Amino acid sequence: MINTPIVHSGEACTKSIAAIRDTLYVLSGKWKLPIIIALKSGPSRFKDLQRQLQDITPKILSKELKELELNEFVTRTVYATSPVTVEYNLTKYSETLNKVIIEMSDWGLQHRKRMMNNSRKEKKSISLQ
Amino acid sequence: MINTPIVHSGEACTKSIAAIRDTLYVLSGKWKLPIIIALKSGPSRFKDLQRQLQDITPKILSKELKELELNEFVTRTVYATSPVTVEYNLTKYSETLNKVIIEMSDWGLQHRKRMMNNSRKEKKSISLQ
Repeated sequence: MINTPIVHSGEACTKSIAAIRDTLYVLSGKWKLPIIIALKSGPSRFKDLQRQLQDITPKILSKELKELELNEFVTRTVYATSPVTVEYNLTKYSETLNKVIIEMSDWGLQHRKRMMNNSRKEKKSISLQ
Repeated sequence: MINTPIVHSGEACTKSIAAIRDTLYVLSGKWKLPIIIALKSGPSRFKDLQRQLQDITPKILSKELKELELNEFVTRTVYATSPVTVEYNLTKYSETLNKVIIEMSDWGLQHRKRMMNNSRKEKKSISLQ
């Protein structure tokens, strides 16, 4: 359990809400952060990303990559091979999201553990009845 | 700029994607974190929350509060006043999100500054042409 209290005056609260809404807007949807994490292992082609993210449709992946490019998290490089090769890569700016990614991953891990413990406890109490 | 590299093997990457997808699932939509931040200043009634969050509809606020209650971030207390008073409050478990909230707020702030600097530079280069 984290004990750091976040003390909020009305104004600080409004500012914090505005800032987090900006972040949520830029990272909207369920795929942008997973795509960024997938690209952390190195430049990838479209098909590789699709394979790694499993249940994403090509249409959504294409849309999300375009938005990530617009927000300067991802670059798209076309190589004049035959057939043409397209590679996606992370920008330096995407690294500013590292702390957000670490905290969100850590939280997801502890939440899953908690859910599993809760369901184990429930099963136990049912079997004791 | 953050310099901490996140080194990813294939397996670590898959685990990290799964964890972040859990977090994104629980915090889905654009309102759950802003509601939690709004409640950090103390227990609130429905109308107060609506006022503080400005452009949220009562239907969405009600849905989001129910989901936050289900995930044990928020409690809903009904007082037998006349008329009945309903108050929403944060749970101890909601504090586990503090680091996520801090990092996302900080990121939003720096992103807005960056956007403003970029647009200022653009204006300058246009006026110099």
